[in-house]
Amino acid sequence: VTTQLEAANKADLCFIAVYPEHHSTLVELKPALAGKTLVDVSNSLRINQNGPSNAELLADYFPESSVVKGFNTISAWTLQMGPRDGGRQVFLCSNSQKAKNTVKAVCHRMGFIPIDMGLLSSSLEIENLPLYLFPSWRLPLLCTLFLFIFFYLYNFFRDVLQPYVMEGKKAFYKMPIEVVNVTLPSVALVMLALVYLPGVFAAILQLWSGTKYNRFPNWLDRWLTSRKQLGLCSFLCAVLHAVYSLCLPLRKSARFKLVNMAYKQVKAGVDDSWVDEEVWRMELYLSVGIMALGLLCLLAVTSLPSVANTINWREFSFIQSTLGYCALFMATAHTLLYGWNRAFDLRQYRFNMPPTFVLVLVLPFLVLLSRLALCVPCAAGRLRKVRRGWERSRHIRFTLPAEGCHNGLEDVSNV
Amino acid sequence: VTTQLEAANKADLCFIAVYPEHHSTLVELKPALAGKTLVDVSNSLRINQNGPSNAELLADYFPESSVVKGFNTISAWTLQMGPRDGGRQVFLCSNSQKAKNTVKAVCHRMGFIPIDMGLLSSSLEIENLPLYLFPSWRLPLLCTLFLFIFFYLYNFFRDVLQPYVMEGKKAFYKMPIEVVNVTLPSVALVMLALVYLPGVFAAILQLWSGTKYNRFPNWLDRWLTSRKQLGLCSFLCAVLHAVYSLCLPLRKSARFKLVNMAYKQVKAGVDDSWVDEEVWRMELYLSVGIMALGLLCLLAVTSLPSVANTINWREFSFIQSTLGYCALFMATAHTLLYGWNRAFDLRQYRFNMPPTFVLVLVLPFLVLLSRLALCVPCAAGRLRKVRRGWERSRHIRFTLPAEGCHNGLEDVSNV
Amino acid sequence: VTTQLEAANKADLCFIAVYPEHHSTLVELKPALAGKTLVDVSNSLRINQNGPSNAELLADYFPESSVVKGFNTISAWTLQMGPRDGGRQVFLCSNSQKAKNTVKAVCHRMGFIPIDMGLLSSSLEIENLPLYLFPSWRLPLLCTLFLFIFFYLYNFFRDVLQPYVMEGKKAFYKMPIEVVNVTLPSVALVMLALVYLPGVFAAILQLWSGTKYNRFPNWLDRWLTSRKQLGLCSFLCAVLHAVYSLCLPLRKSARFKLVNMAYKQVKAGVDDSWVDEEVWRMELYLSVGIMALGLLCLLAVTSLPSVANTINWREFSFIQSTLGYCALFMATAHTLLYGWNRAFDLRQYRFNMPPTFVLVLVLPFLVLLSRLALCVPCAAGRLRKVRRGWERSRHIRFTLPAEGCHNGLEDVSNV
Repeated sequence: VTTQLEAANKADLCFIAVYPEHHSTLVELKPALAGKTLVDVSNSLRINQNGPSNAELLADYFPESSVVKGFNTISAWTLQMGPRDGGRQVFLCSNSQKAKNTVKAVCHRMGFIPIDMGLLSSSLEIENLPLYLFPSWRLPLLCTLFLFIFFYLYNFFRDVLQPYVMEGKKAFYKMPIEVVNVTLPSVALVMLALVYLPGVFAAILQLWSGTKYNRFPNWLDRWLTSRKQLGLCSFLCAVLHAVYSLCLPLRKSARFKLVNMAYKQVKAGVDDSWVDEEVWRMELYLSVGIMALGLLCLLAVTSLPSVANTINWREFSFIQSTLGYCALFMATAHTLLYGWNRAFDLRQYRFNMPPTFVLVLVLPFLVLLSRLALCVPCAAGRLRKVRRGWERSRHIRFTLPAEGCHNGLEDVSNV
Repeated sequence: VTTQLEAANKADLCFIAVYPEHHSTLVELKPALAGKTLVDVSNSLRINQNGPSNAELLADYFPESSVVKGFNTISAWTLQMGPRDGGRQVFLCSNSQKAKNTVKAVCHRMGFIPIDMGLLSSSLEIENLPLYLFPSWRLPLLCTLFLFIFFYLYNFFRDVLQPYVMEGKKAFYKMPIEVVNVTLPSVALVMLALVYLPGVFAAILQLWSGTKYNRFPNWLDRWLTSRKQLGLCSFLCAVLHAVYSLCLPLRKSARFKLVNMAYKQVKAGVDDSWVDEEVWRMELYLSVGIMALGLLCLLAVTSLPSVANTINWREFSFIQSTLGYCALFMATAHTLLYGWNRAFDLRQYRFNMPPTFVLVLVLPFLVLLSRLALCVPCAAGRLRKVRRGWERSRHIRFTLPAEGCHNGLEDVSNV
Repeated sequence: VTTQLEAANKADLCFIAVYPEHHSTLVELKPALAGKTLVDVSNSLRINQNGPSNAELLADYFPESSVVKGFNTISAWTLQMGPRDGGRQVFLCSNSQKAKNTVKAVCHRMGFIPIDMGLLSSSLEIENLPLYLFPSWRLPLLCTLFLFIFFYLYNFFRDVLQPYVMEGKKAFYKMPIEVVNVTLPSVALVMLALVYLPGVFAAILQLWSGTKYNRFPNWLDRWLTSRKQLGLCSFLCAVLHAVYSLCLPLRKSARFKLVNMAYKQVKAGVDDSWVDEEVWRMELYLSVGIMALGLLCLLAVTSLPSVANTINWREFSFIQSTLGYCALFMATAHTLLYGWNRAFDLRQYRFNMPPTFVLVLVLPFLVLLSRLALCVPCAAGRLRKVRRGWERSRHIRFTLPAEGCHNGLEDVSNV
């Protein structure tokens, strides 16, 4: 190992991995580093919102050197194993184009793909990159959590507390599984409706303004971009609901109930307790539920990055839009069949609270009906015209072909 | 924003996003665009089989400009978010190599990977790319659908109609779940056999012709290339079968039957209704079925693009061929154990229709037996020799190493 | 097709696909090939540990040509379909930099990504690459198999043999499903503990030596690098356990038992056989088990290459470390709740063998307690300091930024 000074004298390119508070320790290297390229690879310990970034501080300290920010997003793991799979992108920025080009060449030689992020002012963003913790998942997860707590409490009041208060029946054993299993499908269906609601809003806005070139309001834009996360949260709840449901007959409580049922039938001397309506209701809602889950699985698989990359935009749009609406429809039908005629049964309105499925169905109905309304010929025709940008297609655009991909752009809000 | 003319005068490279029927609106730009590079980014609205393509029409209209087709497969979404993940490939074609090189350089600078597709005559193919809707899935899906309808009707006649016609028993409640659940595994097993059948045909053909350098007939080639899709359809049916089966004890009908069974046992005064043979049959076929499903899951996971990319050809071939045949064997054993001795029970031949599993087993048996026959030393040895291209390996090939990857090529038909 | 000699005369670059034992057949081409670049694309039939490689033999035979090893990892399939998805990396090595550069250019033109592996001495490694069969999975799979056999025999002795020997009860029907279903969760939990044990060892070693720059001993290094495979094996067992459990009520044996239970209750005249403690135990351990499985699913999904590539190091570490420990904790709680008070029930110690869950819990408890101990402020603080490399961060490093990614390196052992 060489001393710092020797190394600084010899090298043209120096990687600096020093926290800003220790920049002063490099003071004696200043003359040796003048005119050379310094690559700041340091990371902060927490997200830095206001700046200045480590790289900017380094540039202030070594005004005669060219500072390039980069390599901080590459983990030691990747550096050790080589960039053979994944994580091959190196984000770079610098005020000196020449220094940046040198580092880019180094990247290429090492097998990485340099991504130019412009001037050193982008370094704050680059330094924050490895510190983010699922920023796009925050809102969807909060939304899921909120809905879960709301529906859990609602079901707890209806299914556990009411029987206890009114009839003294202890049904607290229902809390870990049965109440959760009524809550999960509620959350899943409401979340699925929330995936398709912003698309309906966007279509209405486009019809209203008569153009697709107006920017959507900010909240709608954010909502549109988090549809994937909302959908995956919905899928997670649906899968958990399926697993919980399949566990129901495993439980001791189910077995006790069944044996007691048999006991009662024997005591009552009933030959056959078969009730055709109940049988049909359950066969139907189970079978529709399985189909809805199957469609959601397809949607989830195609949202895997490697699968999404192998399909073209029309295929993506077909799956996410057409199959997605089918899944929403199936899930709504599953809930309706589950509800059967209970919405009209006054005994179900315990504590004056309607059965959960009544609350849950509001949003999906709204989405499905609006979607249906948008399929009425006059609305659909106008919408198609607006989305193809017809009235504006007479011009040549000399910028990037934001408009060239008619299919693409039209579907961003359509999916 | 500049006017069209100003922009056309200044720029060397123009992106044209105009439908062919509106090319005439660009007439006044003709002199300004002469000698410049025009990138046609337009997309058609439906697949154009016969040509001419939009780009060719543009080239006819601007004979003095160099037309490059490209960027039409990139969605507006990707252009907006940057090519950081997925969809980084830009397909380009042009009759002018110089113009193509300019556009390639632009691609690289934007972070895309240009793929050269040759002369402008390829533009029809490039324009059709974003319009395809799962072309490789059409046949496998149709095949699945046809098998599903056939087996569903077959089971409906045997399990629902026959008891109704002969004994007046109403078993229509079986239609949504039980009949589907006998149909799905039948489709899954036949489809799985269809995955391995073309490989057997290919081996027999290679043995017959004594060389691996003869092209396979067209139908076999198409069949070989759609094995992945056939396999995934089979997997989908198998998973649905598992879910349907797990749902069986959830149903009211199952509960009613159980309680009635208990009632009858009490009435008959039978102490213990345990039948050892039935217990063993079910434990065995369930356990073999789970293993078959587990193997199919492994096959499905390794067919995900990102997983398939991390394994080498020998590993891929081991999973798809060795584990695949294990899965086929297990699934066949599952069906045999399910059938037990019912194939020899005349009462099962309702309406003179054999039990479904008898029909289903024909193809898997055929595949497994042929595979076994190909493992007999003399056949296997000859096949190995043919596949290593032994008698032809004395020559140097100066073309691409189609033969260099002995392991590779041998397995294309082996898997 | 040209003759070999004509082709050798014309081309500057020749692809050689000939096994070493047939190099002598090329003797007449020697003068024609002198000074030209030969790309050896051949593959061996089995792994060659000692050398010399095919390419080295070729270089010995043609000392006047420049031999480049490469393209052997590309399958004929990829060459035929084009490198559009996956398998785009071509590993190259040669003693002649000029020849290597020529081949690199060919790679680029064909759409492949050349990876430079240095001198021709690397050719042995490159030739072995396509022959490996899951080398990183060998140890984890052997470990799983060993644990499976051990626990299966243990459970077989306790649950099948003991009742038969002691009371003459035939419970052999339990072998295909019930015994397997007690074995699988045991393997899954022990394997999950084995995933987190080496991290604990690493932390203790770092605390002990007071630095993170000492290399770990070899066994620990190998263990740390196979954690992903260990975790996936554990996940596989957990999923199979879930499927087996869900199949339990499907079985004829379960139905017979239930009906017999009902019969006994009727005979005994017991109105209600409900036992609150048993109900609560089962509801709780099922619900905790589902959560543990859900967390393991998340871990498995994020270990898919394409998903892992889209998340940064902090997110990866959060999922694999924080959520991973949550999963371990949940799985341990699931086992504890399953055990309930049976560990203190002497009747469970058949043949003096403790219940399986008691054995299983040893390792998870050890890991969770050590982890807890490492969270005690004084240990945690020192560890954090060691992992940030604080005392050594005053130096500039002129090599690659092994240290720049403080977050990265710290987490390699932390996860």
